[in-house]
Amino acid sequence: MPLKTGKEYIESLHQRKPMKIFFLGKKIDAPLGHPIIKASINSVALTYDLAQDPNYKKVMTAQSALSGETVNRFCHLHQSAEDLMAKVNMLRLLGQKTGTCFQRCVGMDALNAVFITTFEIDSQYFTNYHQRFLNYMQLVEANDWTIDGCMTDPKGDRSKRPSEQTDPDLFVHIVERRNDGVIIRGAKAHQTGAINSHEHLIMPTLTMQQEDKDYTICCAVPADDPNIVYLYGRQSCDLRRLDESPLGDIDCGNPTFGGQECLVIFDNVFVPDERIFMNGETDFCGRLVDTFSGYHRQSYGGCKVGVGDVLIGAAASIAEYNGTEKTSHIRDKLTEMIHLNETLYSCGIACSACGQKTPAGNFLIDLLLANICKQNVTRFPFEIA
Amino acid sequence: MPLKTGKEYIESLHQRKPMKIFFLGKKIDAPLGHPIIKASINSVALTYDLAQDPNYKKVMTAQSALSGETVNRFCHLHQSAEDLMAKVNMLRLLGQKTGTCFQRCVGMDALNAVFITTFEIDSQYFTNYHQRFLNYMQLVEANDWTIDGCMTDPKGDRSKRPSEQTDPDLFVHIVERRNDGVIIRGAKAHQTGAINSHEHLIMPTLTMQQEDKDYTICCAVPADDPNIVYLYGRQSCDLRRLDESPLGDIDCGNPTFGGQECLVIFDNVFVPDERIFMNGETDFCGRLVDTFSGYHRQSYGGCKVGVGDVLIGAAASIAEYNGTEKTSHIRDKLTEMIHLNETLYSCGIACSACGQKTPAGNFLIDLLLANICKQNVTRFPFEIA
Amino acid sequence: MPLKTGKEYIESLHQRKPMKIFFLGKKIDAPLGHPIIKASINSVALTYDLAQDPNYKKVMTAQSALSGETVNRFCHLHQSAEDLMAKVNMLRLLGQKTGTCFQRCVGMDALNAVFITTFEIDSQYFTNYHQRFLNYMQLVEANDWTIDGCMTDPKGDRSKRPSEQTDPDLFVHIVERRNDGVIIRGAKAHQTGAINSHEHLIMPTLTMQQEDKDYTICCAVPADDPNIVYLYGRQSCDLRRLDESPLGDIDCGNPTFGGQECLVIFDNVFVPDERIFMNGETDFCGRLVDTFSGYHRQSYGGCKVGVGDVLIGAAASIAEYNGTEKTSHIRDKLTEMIHLNETLYSCGIACSACGQKTPAGNFLIDLLLANICKQNVTRFPFEIA
Amino acid sequence: MPLKTGKEYIESLHQRKPMKIFFLGKKIDAPLGHPIIKASINSVALTYDLAQDPNYKKVMTAQSALSGETVNRFCHLHQSAEDLMAKVNMLRLLGQKTGTCFQRCVGMDALNAVFITTFEIDSQYFTNYHQRFLNYMQLVEANDWTIDGCMTDPKGDRSKRPSEQTDPDLFVHIVERRNDGVIIRGAKAHQTGAINSHEHLIMPTLTMQQEDKDYTICCAVPADDPNIVYLYGRQSCDLRRLDESPLGDIDCGNPTFGGQECLVIFDNVFVPDERIFMNGETDFCGRLVDTFSGYHRQSYGGCKVGVGDVLIGAAASIAEYNGTEKTSHIRDKLTEMIHLNETLYSCGIACSACGQKTPAGNFLIDLLLANICKQNVTRFPFEIA
Ligand SMILES: Cc1cc2nc3c(=O)[nH]c(=O)nc-3n(C[C@H](O)[C@H](O)[C@H](O)COP(=O)(O)OP(=O)(O)OC[C@H]3O[C@@H](n4cnc5c(N)ncnc54)[C@H](O)[C@@H]3O)c2cc1C
Ligand SMILES: Cc1cc2nc3c(=O)[nH]c(=O)nc-3n(C[C@H](O)[C@H](O)[C@H](O)COP(=O)(O)OP(=O)(O)OC[C@H]3O[C@@H](n4cnc5c(N)ncnc54)[C@H](O)[C@@H]3O)c2cc1C
Ligand SMILES: Cc1cc2nc3c(=O)[nH]c(=O)nc-3n(C[C@H](O)[C@H](O)[C@H](O)COP(=O)(O)OP(=O)(O)OC[C@H]3O[C@@H](n4cnc5c(N)ncnc54)[C@H](O)[C@@H]3O)c2cc1C
Ligand SMILES: Cc1cc2nc3c(=O)[nH]c(=O)nc-3n(C[C@H](O)[C@H](O)[C@H](O)COP(=O)(O)OP(=O)(O)OC[C@H]3O[C@@H](n4cnc5c(N)ncnc54)[C@H](O)[C@@H]3O)c2cc1C
Repeated sequence: MPLKTGKEYIESLHQRKPMKIFFLGKKIDAPLGHPIIKASINSVALTYDLAQDPNYKKVMTAQSALSGETVNRFCHLHQSAEDLMAKVNMLRLLGQKTGTCFQRCVGMDALNAVFITTFEIDSQYFTNYHQRFLNYMQLVEANDWTIDGCMTDPKGDRSKRPSEQTDPDLFVHIVERRNDGVIIRGAKAHQTGAINSHEHLIMPTLTMQQEDKDYTICCAVPADDPNIVYLYGRQSCDLRRLDESPLGDIDCGNPTFGGQECLVIFDNVFVPDERIFMNGETDFCGRLVDTFSGYHRQSYGGCKVGVGDVLIGAAASIAEYNGTEKTSHIRDKLTEMIHLNETLYSCGIACSACGQKTPAGNFLIDLLLANICKQNVTRFPFEIA
Repeated sequence: MPLKTGKEYIESLHQRKPMKIFFLGKKIDAPLGHPIIKASINSVALTYDLAQDPNYKKVMTAQSALSGETVNRFCHLHQSAEDLMAKVNMLRLLGQKTGTCFQRCVGMDALNAVFITTFEIDSQYFTNYHQRFLNYMQLVEANDWTIDGCMTDPKGDRSKRPSEQTDPDLFVHIVERRNDGVIIRGAKAHQTGAINSHEHLIMPTLTMQQEDKDYTICCAVPADDPNIVYLYGRQSCDLRRLDESPLGDIDCGNPTFGGQECLVIFDNVFVPDERIFMNGETDFCGRLVDTFSGYHRQSYGGCKVGVGDVLIGAAASIAEYNGTEKTSHIRDKLTEMIHLNETLYSCGIACSACGQKTPAGNFLIDLLLANICKQNVTRFPFEIA
Repeated sequence: MPLKTGKEYIESLHQRKPMKIFFLGKKIDAPLGHPIIKASINSVALTYDLAQDPNYKKVMTAQSALSGETVNRFCHLHQSAEDLMAKVNMLRLLGQKTGTCFQRCVGMDALNAVFITTFEIDSQYFTNYHQRFLNYMQLVEANDWTIDGCMTDPKGDRSKRPSEQTDPDLFVHIVERRNDGVIIRGAKAHQTGAINSHEHLIMPTLTMQQEDKDYTICCAVPADDPNIVYLYGRQSCDLRRLDESPLGDIDCGNPTFGGQECLVIFDNVFVPDERIFMNGETDFCGRLVDTFSGYHRQSYGGCKVGVGDVLIGAAASIAEYNGTEKTSHIRDKLTEMIHLNETLYSCGIACSACGQKTPAGNFLIDLLLANICKQNVTRFPFEIA
Repeated sequence: MPLKTGKEYIESLHQRKPMKIFFLGKKIDAPLGHPIIKASINSVALTYDLAQDPNYKKVMTAQSALSGETVNRFCHLHQSAEDLMAKVNMLRLLGQKTGTCFQRCVGMDALNAVFITTFEIDSQYFTNYHQRFLNYMQLVEANDWTIDGCMTDPKGDRSKRPSEQTDPDLFVHIVERRNDGVIIRGAKAHQTGAINSHEHLIMPTLTMQQEDKDYTICCAVPADDPNIVYLYGRQSCDLRRLDESPLGDIDCGNPTFGGQECLVIFDNVFVPDERIFMNGETDFCGRLVDTFSGYHRQSYGGCKVGVGDVLIGAAASIAEYNGTEKTSHIRDKLTEMIHLNETLYSCGIACSACGQKTPAGNFLIDLLLANICKQNVTRFPFEIA
């Protein structure tokens, strides 16, 4: 069975080649043991451990449509509206258990989106991206990989197209085309869980036009490619994790679990043909972005709700400590927090329940409702907090 | 097949015995032809006509679990989460087509709620309410009745219980118990579509305590019982419908369709045993209220969204007439209207998709999420408008 | 002393020449006695009566800077920040007393704005508008006139300028220039209190460009000019005022006081030179619009707050009737209503307290803060209601 | 002239006796040079330096009603509504210049409140607190002191009164009464600028009842009393200030200025009679709390608006860097930020402009409107951010 335990997952990270990781201006030597990074690894590891837990197995795993095996739902191509709802419930569960970002959904969303887009490109251009991607997808499932869904370029001046930027590397692009593959250069910003991943699934970040052909590349590269450089992103109170005094835990807030984002620099990385899923088909960029975003907007209707549950619980506990848990204005506020949180959840569920089967065979959420979900994610969590 | 046309529905209203209906302090003689009431009948009639329309048949009808026949979904006991979602879609459709309240959902919600509660009472008290109700329900389906879900009492001083009120008739109650039935007195306020209904399905409005036993009555009475008096409720611009000048239509806003609420006074109405579905089981009042409210809160996630669609379309048309349809702040506002409306719809869909089968056999929405839906109904439509 | 009583004011309306007033498609014969119009006259009359009341004299009157006499504050050129704050307090008082629009502030705001702009035009173009306006202003004070501040044109296609419209009369404009004056044609929409006024003070509604010179006209015309036609505007429940049955009052809501807006059509109205305060100086239109709007935005920080006070009181009374006045969620809602209402008041006061003396000699509110006030008026009253 | 420069202020801090200050669980040896504390001192120092700056003198200083001398407005008893508005403008200015909390307003607000309450207590009980306080106030002015307005006790179980708490020291109270003064024990939480102050002006935090007499104490103690212990409060990203690498400044956000709060423990501190301004007059606690809170609520209408100005400017700059400064949805958001910020300012100004002279002789803001201001402070800054 392909399912890894959390421990096996961490071991698999150790088996990667050495990676160039910088934090606070300095290269980090043993990144996996670094107190800040460690917390973010704990979160991802839980996505493995809960899949082993009989209580959560149903929501955490699914039957692969490719191999028939039980796979982690994070490696799954959704096969029904129920699958889409189960995804939301899985993310809410993990939000509750970690109280933070567990980093593995961006990849799941990218996999489902690339699955659809490769099918559609092939239908129009008679390319064979979809078969390549199916092969890749089988590896993903079999190895229970964590994938970094890798879309956002630094972009520079937003009023200009990729090929118009002063610095040509502000969007990931092909700098050399070879017989057996391509060389890419550029960077992707805010990459969730980048260092904790086995692979980056790179996608274009914008609709593109003809002149942006070299910027139209979708492909997979291993996280430990020697030509990748990682700049570990700061989070607001990150340094508190470095406080190792006995009470350091308290000020840290969430001592066990953490999130992670990186700026990932691709400094002339070679990608072999079989790992390329789109190459110059500019007219499909918009579709890929929309599909990926749609899935990802749905995700927020789960994960943020789980984190919201933690906040609501914490707020209720504080009220108890203060002896104010029965005060009507406090109860009103807790009720309002629940109201907003469940509205968000409703949006996550609704876009899932209205999901439809795609020609490629997996299920796609309702894109309009997924967008509504995302819009509310930009509002409610801030009111809850 | 039990399905009536709109025309047959209107004829069936005419076949009722004469009813005592007052409006603006005067008795109305030919209520069905009254210009204000007529508009509200048009709305109900559309719930019949659309069920005949091949385009809408799927959403407007369902297969009865009792008779196996195709029935109007308004007379249906929901058999699946899909049924619950179809209900929401039906209500949105009718909201779009009428732009107002079409009055028939309160009864549908009451039927499903009483179905559940009678089953539960019987399980505990070995009464036979559920079988009585099944008999009644078969009539409802076979006659394609419009039912007034009849819950809200005038209530008087809200800080006092029913039996504590100065005026004993502020809540509907049993004034006499006979061998073959009971006599009830009291009133129900804000009864949607009361005059356009064939039957009133009366339910208690509150959790009750032992001393409120006489107030604990759930039963059905025909709308044309001679001991019922109707006070037709005013709506904000109702008199405009009386303007019969050529341009009267314009100021009227919605010239074809309208809503309706009445104060319905039960002035010693006899109810035979076979029409009584609860009688003194005070401990089940709360459950009935919650179940009915839950279904009704879900309903708003459909009907109000349909009316919202009309408002959004109207707002967009006005912008076009003014030559401002491309202005960014106008488009932002239209987008925001859509956002709020679809959030509401998401709530309607989510509580449906998370619905579960009850021991009685029909499907009940998720009560927490239905409540969330209702809370948003008390907010968003006012921001949309 | 120039101060009229309410009764004298009404008499002065009767002394006007016959006016062409249409309502619901028909010409009204005795407009001042019409039950709908009467209510709106009562509101204006109160602005006269309260000025006589020793309790309110201080806030309702001021000492004229032109004549030294005590004048109604509605006819006053503000002489200090205190005057500006007193204006806000006067409007709040009248909002509380009438619960509706009392129609007289638009004129007050127009007078103060035209006072400033005529001074500024003269400074640049050596015209003598300011002296003409001072003469007019003395008449206003001496006769205690109610003035319709007359700015909003129907405008047609908002993406086109006045001179580009298909129909040349969509903005008021000069159709003929004579030796002793001009003839104007066009209409002004939504004119508050138009029929209850003695005069219209006409102003351009937009910044204008060179080609809109004929549309650049500011002038005063008597309300009873025979070439003016009034289309009385509908209000949501207006027909209820026609119900003369004993209980008609209850459904009417506000039986004594009402508001009024009209579409006022200027069908070739002659304006003599001494009543013209701007004529083709296109570069001053924007300034006049801004100044008038600024004063008017301040006004809302008073009148709407007064009406809000009535709503809050009504809501509190309903809670008492229902026996729910001590319920915490009801008190929270009342508190929130007060909070929003007083925030609005704060905005009205703040733009006044930060007011500055103009070169013309009167006081102008802080324009930025007055705009803030208006923005909140477009939000809070709807949340309060 | 009593006005100190920023440099003289810092010197005066150095002249204090050694203080016991703990941060992150350890005693700090040279607190004034500590990189985190230094930033907070810079903010206070600016309140001195700007008072010397001819551009800001008018808003930063005032003429003392006690000595006739020019004093820093932070040491001033407000003499007019203009003074109250000038206070708001001073705080907005400092918010703009520091982008953070400059810590000196709590003391100013405490001084004005104690001035009023001592006068009122004396009127009722023929005590001589007011004269004592006037003597103290002259020292404050003459030395240009920074005062910590010291009100908030830790409070423990909020459902119990001070004398009912399990731990008697959860509210500051008198543990010994001597001939020449009292000994107090307890703590005050969240004390803004505690370590950067010359004095603590201690006030009760609640309305008190008879049994809470020992908890009813208002008095002044020097910040360097040897029996005081300071626990320096954490702020979200505080450790970033410790990063001394070349680019540390960037991540720090606001490298120059900072805020400060401490938990201040009074471990048997002696207070001589002449420094006691209230002692057991429980019926005046509520009044003192309300008056102080009122002044402080007004303050937020200045300082938070200044910080808001910085945020708005920063947001506008980011948009420029991204090449999106002309995008309509970005401009809308900036406009909305300005709108909320100026609404807050309006509330600060309005409660000032409606301020009234007290019997004691200084000016008190309108308490209702100051409360409105505070309520908006709990909403708008979070929406702005
Ligand atoms: C916590 C976190 C985790 C993330 N994880 C991932 C991840 O795992 N993988 C990944 O690929 N990405 C990730 N992202 C990136 C995320 O998808 C982007 O931040 C998001 O898409 C916005 O892109 P941006 O930051 O470049 O902002 P922009 O897109 O530049 O937007 C900034 C502002 O400018 C406006 N704007 C931008 N372009 C234009 C234009 N042409 N015209 C007008 N207005 C414009 C926008 O509307 C917005 O208001 C993450 C982000 C965060 C915050
Ligand atoms: C358009 C419309 C159509 C309707 N159609 C129907 C229908 O078809 N059938 C039907 O049965 N009903 C119908 N209703 C009635 C509706 O269900 C009730 O209006 C609703 O349940 C509220 O009841 P109420 O009007 O008695 O208000 P109340 O329940 O009295 O509430 C008024 C306020 O008082 C508070 N309150 C009430 N009691 C207490 C208490 N004991 N303690 C503290 N606070 C309290 C409430 O929270 C609320 O803020 C309709 C209503 C409307 C507006
Ligand atoms: C109760 C009431 C009383 C009134 N009393 C008076 C009065 O006494 N005197 C008086 O003179 N007026 C009065 N008015 C009119 C009021 O000043 C106008 O309604 C207001 O200025 C808006 O003008 P409008 O109705 O023409 O709408 P528009 O200005 O046409 O605005 C409609 C929408 O179109 C947008 N829009 C308009 N033009 C453009 C453009 N060129 N580009 C992009 N977007 C555009 C607007 O932003 C808005 O969203 C009153 C109005 C009301 C409701
Ligand atoms: C940045 C900052 C700076 C500050 N600076 C100063 C300063 O310089 N000097 C100073 O004296 N203080 C200062 N304070 C403290 C501030 O005044 C208090 O935080 C505030 O008054 C709230 O008190 P609290 O924190 O004890 O919360 P609480 O008062 O305990 O409130 C917590 C919650 O419990 C509720 N609650 C509390 N008691 C009851 C009750 N009996 N019944 C029902 N509900 C109840 C409240 O409504 C609230 O929702 C500062 C605070 C902050 C955040």
